[in-house]
Amino acid sequence: MNNKDKLLVEPQKFSYEKKFDLESGDSLEGFEIVYETYGQLNESKSNAILICHALSGNHHAAGYHSKEDKKPGWWDELIGPNKAFDTNKYFVVSLNNLGGCHGSTGPNSINKTTNEEYGSTFPIVTVEDWVKSQNLLRDFLMIPKWLAVAGGSLGGMQALQWSIDFPDKLSKSIVIAAAPKLSTQNIAFNEVARQSILSDPDFNRGDSHPKKGLGLARMLGHITYLSEESMKNKFGRELKNETIEYGYDVEFQIESYLRYQGETFSQQFNAHTYLLMTKALDYFDPSKKTDGDLSKVVSSTECDFLVISFKSDWRFSPERSKEIVNALITAKKPVSYLEIDSIQGHDSFLMQNERYVDALKTYLEN
Amino acid sequence: MNNKDKLLVEPQKFSYEKKFDLESGDSLEGFEIVYETYGQLNESKSNAILICHALSGNHHAAGYHSKEDKKPGWWDELIGPNKAFDTNKYFVVSLNNLGGCHGSTGPNSINKTTNEEYGSTFPIVTVEDWVKSQNLLRDFLMIPKWLAVAGGSLGGMQALQWSIDFPDKLSKSIVIAAAPKLSTQNIAFNEVARQSILSDPDFNRGDSHPKKGLGLARMLGHITYLSEESMKNKFGRELKNETIEYGYDVEFQIESYLRYQGETFSQQFNAHTYLLMTKALDYFDPSKKTDGDLSKVVSSTECDFLVISFKSDWRFSPERSKEIVNALITAKKPVSYLEIDSIQGHDSFLMQNERYVDALKTYLEN
Repeated sequence: MNNKDKLLVEPQKFSYEKKFDLESGDSLEGFEIVYETYGQLNESKSNAILICHALSGNHHAAGYHSKEDKKPGWWDELIGPNKAFDTNKYFVVSLNNLGGCHGSTGPNSINKTTNEEYGSTFPIVTVEDWVKSQNLLRDFLMIPKWLAVAGGSLGGMQALQWSIDFPDKLSKSIVIAAAPKLSTQNIAFNEVARQSILSDPDFNRGDSHPKKGLGLARMLGHITYLSEESMKNKFGRELKNETIEYGYDVEFQIESYLRYQGETFSQQFNAHTYLLMTKALDYFDPSKKTDGDLSKVVSSTECDFLVISFKSDWRFSPERSKEIVNALITAKKPVSYLEIDSIQGHDSFLMQNERYVDALKTYLEN
Repeated sequence: MNNKDKLLVEPQKFSYEKKFDLESGDSLEGFEIVYETYGQLNESKSNAILICHALSGNHHAAGYHSKEDKKPGWWDELIGPNKAFDTNKYFVVSLNNLGGCHGSTGPNSINKTTNEEYGSTFPIVTVEDWVKSQNLLRDFLMIPKWLAVAGGSLGGMQALQWSIDFPDKLSKSIVIAAAPKLSTQNIAFNEVARQSILSDPDFNRGDSHPKKGLGLARMLGHITYLSEESMKNKFGRELKNETIEYGYDVEFQIESYLRYQGETFSQQFNAHTYLLMTKALDYFDPSKKTDGDLSKVVSSTECDFLVISFKSDWRFSPERSKEIVNALITAKKPVSYLEIDSIQGHDSFLMQNERYVDALKTYLEN
């Protein structure tokens, strides 16, 4: 992209000064949330869409922070003029969740009580906590009701939780590549990722940047974001060098790719935040209050739903999305469901795909 | 089982004194292989079956080493009197592969040149190297031809390699829960396991027992051995304690299980061996000499084949077994194929299952 065509965006801050109680029983003495907005709020304040981020996401969902930035925000393929979330029509809000490491109050913030970084003392935060804090942001922005709350993966879980916790504060809930709760296997992968970090001696010496542990966690995560087919298409069994080396240096291209992903990520992300995000995933289960019956929990929702899944997603497979859809149908709620034929696995939700974009556009317009 | 009913077995040793060239171009100045036998070799020496082990297996496939042993060999459910590999009928031989850590020459053996443990200097060994060493064991045992060579997972790959490398030395090849070569995703998981070990500071200080790294590798491996369904049935989202603790101690039962598996394994296994085994898996690809055409490679085989897969195995799915079957069919080789409806994932191959046992019995008898 030509530098002059880059849409610039500036992060903003919302400070909440009061005590904020968390689901765990713990609390924060106020917090800051960093957010970005794209497009213009209309006069009737009826065109606002909240975007919720996934495990490693943040507030920077679209556009560029400077003309020199090489990469745009994480959902730039879907947010912008004439895109799925069309900023010519909608006012899009994206935030960094509590516990994040990109500007909102989190492990790398200073705890005013101790004057030190929170680090491992930052309390566990849950999807419910996030949605509660996002609702305070809504108040602050003076938006009476979101036209839609949308997100993929962990972000989709927030979109679902919104419909349950603040039924009259959103018109549409867009739940993409999500699940009503983690499977045992999902938790198992998270636990290995956590143990990678928790057992890294650098981490135990109080270093928030345990490169090895966080890198391992990311390598593992990455396998679950890609489909077997897309990995095969992209890397196959291609060797890095011309011949087999018979050693532990990179032999296959896929090893090179994963190591690079792990190393890059470990330099950009906070290990405590990673731990917190995996825990929020594990704990997410709106049906826990109704003995596992999700249809009872969603019976009080008032919005429309769009649930989208991707055929090759094995982290949160279409079956998991259908669990949400079925609960909504049982509760007689208006829900549209779309399974998209993409080979890119869980990561499909981040990418442009004609049917995906059309579905989002149509749903938002109706 | 009553102690007096336990079948006792004693490991034996085969010493090979000559230089043994490896596929990598490296070599060993002789080696020792530890093995066990169950049942009696008949007069015509026509009832011998070779069992090949998988990643973490060893020579102790059946029976007990002492009356006090709590656990029998790793394939005791299938090897013994009247079992699938019926020791009333067959003479079953099981060995620990080169590079292993249970008695055969491997990383924890003394390198006679340096008078120190090999450790990380032990050369990379491949499935072809193993099969070549197993053929020397066959010579030593004066068995003209195996009735069958059998194995699951990496063991099944050896059974396949036998048919290619020594076509006139086996009558039947039994390839269970295997693949003709690893997928990109398989290699990716192996690479994360290796990096867990290679990045463990204890390991880098020359310790062969880096408990954290090896434990992590095993935790991850374990997820791929179980099906999503069996994990769900066994652990679900059950909490360890009565209520959610909101912390990083064990919260869900699955976490407790995985940590236990990792810890136990890390005390029993050698990290260098683990690395070697994952490399042998990565490198396995009999079709590499024929530009990926497995049917060409198997065209010179002379034995019968039985290929078995398990429906819920996502590590080496039935599709992967079918690739082997299809290559054999293309090459007009006699092959029987059975897909078994088991929910226990890749680990199914270790367990008794009526159809599985019947199939093995029938195939061996005919």
